[in-house]
Amino acid sequence: MDFAYNTKFPLVVIIGGGFGGIEAAKKFKNKPVNVLMLDKNNYHGFWPLLYQVAMGSLECESIAFSLRKKFDNQKNFRFRVAEVKGVNPVGKYVETSIGDIAYDYLVIATGSTTNFFGNKDIERYAMPMKTIPEALNIRYLILQNLEAAVLKASKEEREPYLNFVLVGAGPTGVELAGSLAEIRNHILTKDYPELKKEEMKVYLVDFLPKVLGPMSEEASKAAEKFLRGMGVELLLGTKVESYDGETIVFEGGKSIRTMNVIWSAGVMGQIPAGIDKEKIVRGNRIKTNVYCQVDGFTDIFAIGDVAASITEKTPNGHPGVAQVAMQQGVNVAENILNIIENKPLEAFSYFDKGSMATIGRNKAVADIGKIKFQGFFAWLTWMFIHLISLMGGRNRWIVFINWVASYVSYNGGNRLIIRKFVKETADAQKNAVTKADQ
Amino acid sequence: MDFAYNTKFPLVVIIGGGFGGIEAAKKFKNKPVNVLMLDKNNYHGFWPLLYQVAMGSLECESIAFSLRKKFDNQKNFRFRVAEVKGVNPVGKYVETSIGDIAYDYLVIATGSTTNFFGNKDIERYAMPMKTIPEALNIRYLILQNLEAAVLKASKEEREPYLNFVLVGAGPTGVELAGSLAEIRNHILTKDYPELKKEEMKVYLVDFLPKVLGPMSEEASKAAEKFLRGMGVELLLGTKVESYDGETIVFEGGKSIRTMNVIWSAGVMGQIPAGIDKEKIVRGNRIKTNVYCQVDGFTDIFAIGDVAASITEKTPNGHPGVAQVAMQQGVNVAENILNIIENKPLEAFSYFDKGSMATIGRNKAVADIGKIKFQGFFAWLTWMFIHLISLMGGRNRWIVFINWVASYVSYNGGNRLIIRKFVKETADAQKNAVTKADQ
Repeated sequence: MDFAYNTKFPLVVIIGGGFGGIEAAKKFKNKPVNVLMLDKNNYHGFWPLLYQVAMGSLECESIAFSLRKKFDNQKNFRFRVAEVKGVNPVGKYVETSIGDIAYDYLVIATGSTTNFFGNKDIERYAMPMKTIPEALNIRYLILQNLEAAVLKASKEEREPYLNFVLVGAGPTGVELAGSLAEIRNHILTKDYPELKKEEMKVYLVDFLPKVLGPMSEEASKAAEKFLRGMGVELLLGTKVESYDGETIVFEGGKSIRTMNVIWSAGVMGQIPAGIDKEKIVRGNRIKTNVYCQVDGFTDIFAIGDVAASITEKTPNGHPGVAQVAMQQGVNVAENILNIIENKPLEAFSYFDKGSMATIGRNKAVADIGKIKFQGFFAWLTWMFIHLISLMGGRNRWIVFINWVASYVSYNGGNRLIIRKFVKETADAQKNAVTKADQ
Repeated sequence: MDFAYNTKFPLVVIIGGGFGGIEAAKKFKNKPVNVLMLDKNNYHGFWPLLYQVAMGSLECESIAFSLRKKFDNQKNFRFRVAEVKGVNPVGKYVETSIGDIAYDYLVIATGSTTNFFGNKDIERYAMPMKTIPEALNIRYLILQNLEAAVLKASKEEREPYLNFVLVGAGPTGVELAGSLAEIRNHILTKDYPELKKEEMKVYLVDFLPKVLGPMSEEASKAAEKFLRGMGVELLLGTKVESYDGETIVFEGGKSIRTMNVIWSAGVMGQIPAGIDKEKIVRGNRIKTNVYCQVDGFTDIFAIGDVAASITEKTPNGHPGVAQVAMQQGVNVAENILNIIENKPLEAFSYFDKGSMATIGRNKAVADIGKIKFQGFFAWLTWMFIHLISLMGGRNRWIVFINWVASYVSYNGGNRLIIRKFVKETADAQKNAVTKADQ
């Protein structure tokens, strides 16, 4: 296959069109390289707003942008929809679903996936939320379970359909909990006159004793107060033991009957095959040096969630956030150009712009350097930063209109079940096993 | 099950939340009836814009609206997601996926589905476009085939992926052809620098010798001129003989290699089981009297695409358009109330507001009574009418922004493959048969 805009230039293959891959590719504009980006999807997703897709308040397409369209004015850029199966560092090629592709420089920017910590039952029955189809599945499951609840005659029968358990109290869990509480508080009885507000319960679970673990104490405390005020039940310092699709059991024996478990308790790097095991560190991340080079190579780089630049200052690598990936994307492109131009490499240094989480209407928390603030102004800031970070003017307008409509009406979002989601249940599973046994 | 807001009032069951069902339900607001609407989806779809969902220029959720939300301020309205399996006119109940439901009055507003005229191969391999998932499948198929074309080395190998054949030159076929031509003319080489405009071909096929059959001669001629000007190849007076997923063959022997066949050549009523065969007329529609009552019943009504009010003036019933369904929805509600109040029934009379079709940027045709106009003003009118007809202010704004963005940029829409569509092919089919035979 021929990906060369100019055959005199080397080919940089970037695996992944996430925050890191995009920034790297952009930096190569008008530079003496050919860029080929591979991604299993033809779009870039703005994951910080994915929970709003799951909650039905945004269309999935307003948080995503076509990778081809994004780069349609960059002549040295090519794109292919492809799944990368492995890397061959000796032969200098990647094995993909569309054939082997030789590279001169390789950037692994494959991101992370949900970590179920080896619990197969949880993996089978709980809902992960790391991709758009997964977010849509959550939306459809929730709506289907509300529809199912309406059909049940007794409170006891309705209970598992109306209990929502969010495992993992990081930004995703907190934002989901806040959104679900708002659905309960403002929308439930409008849409479902048959249901009672009190019957819908939202639980937020974490094995840590606080929400938003990596943020400041102020942010964590404020978020807990906001969540409690909205009626979210916090189960902190609580470890999940098992989930069979119908009942979630916690260490110590407490359990909740629920058909709705969303799992955002951990992530792990998605590493293509062919990377030596000794180069893989905690969280399934690839060990890199300060130049984002994979340990032992000068032509293979790794950035973002899949990489861990292990230094004295960062013994576990950098946090798995978009800002790290974006800054590493720029660094990796500069360093590849430095190599080509025989210039010295530049060490990566992370500039932490801060972190934020939103809980609901007028409620957010922000840690920006030493400045920590919570409440209405944090919420405005959160919205502004997320709006301007979205890709595409059209997307920005559409998200803005959705937010205004939600704010004014207390009843945003369309809540449509476009494709039914078929959830595995313990019973369905038992039946499947029985059939296989026959 | 209990659907009664007021147990003293009779229960009207409406099957279907389309144009007809919605108008009927609205008309019952604050009237002495209980209304139960059943639909297999939890939304109402604005089908005149469905082709824009298929073409990737609109998100599916901007043309759909939650049925629960639509009626959240109508106290005597209840809704259930349910598939209706059959009607029992003697026992006065409907059989559904959520159990049997007794009615006092029944309104069948189940609409129509794609008519493949009994050709099983076409049904298997061609793409229908009557539902949102079907429109999304078309979008994904087209995008996947463009991605596939990029991977092919020779023009001959690319050909079937880049030939688009639209069967049926009614408004849907014409609108799809125009949109595909615009994608070819303005977007193809921007998104896919590897492809050539000339290699993508759009064919519009109809067995009639003209496009937009039921519209005026002026509209038809203008549409043909617009389409030809945009590079659409018209195959009129041409009948499809077969399609095996790779080659479409026409009567007389001409054939086109194509992986992309969209079938909008006909519709047929979707009738629940339990309606006597002698009450079913041409196009699989239920024969009704002028009061929209199903022939022989006073408590069962049928409206919209599934119904044919056969009179001397309308020997084939009314055209299968939204306006008929909406006006019949109003009539049916009034007549049910008339029966309850012992008043005489009112005969349905259709007020034809005219018909329109859009071909592309600045190009549309309109027949409004005796006034016929084409071109820019018709296009503006088309947009205005479709915008104000959409349900929900949010949807209107979002569609408006999408249209403005497309008009300004010549590059609207996001064109994302959210869920891969797996198309059956003749080969896959052959393999499947082989496996089953083993």
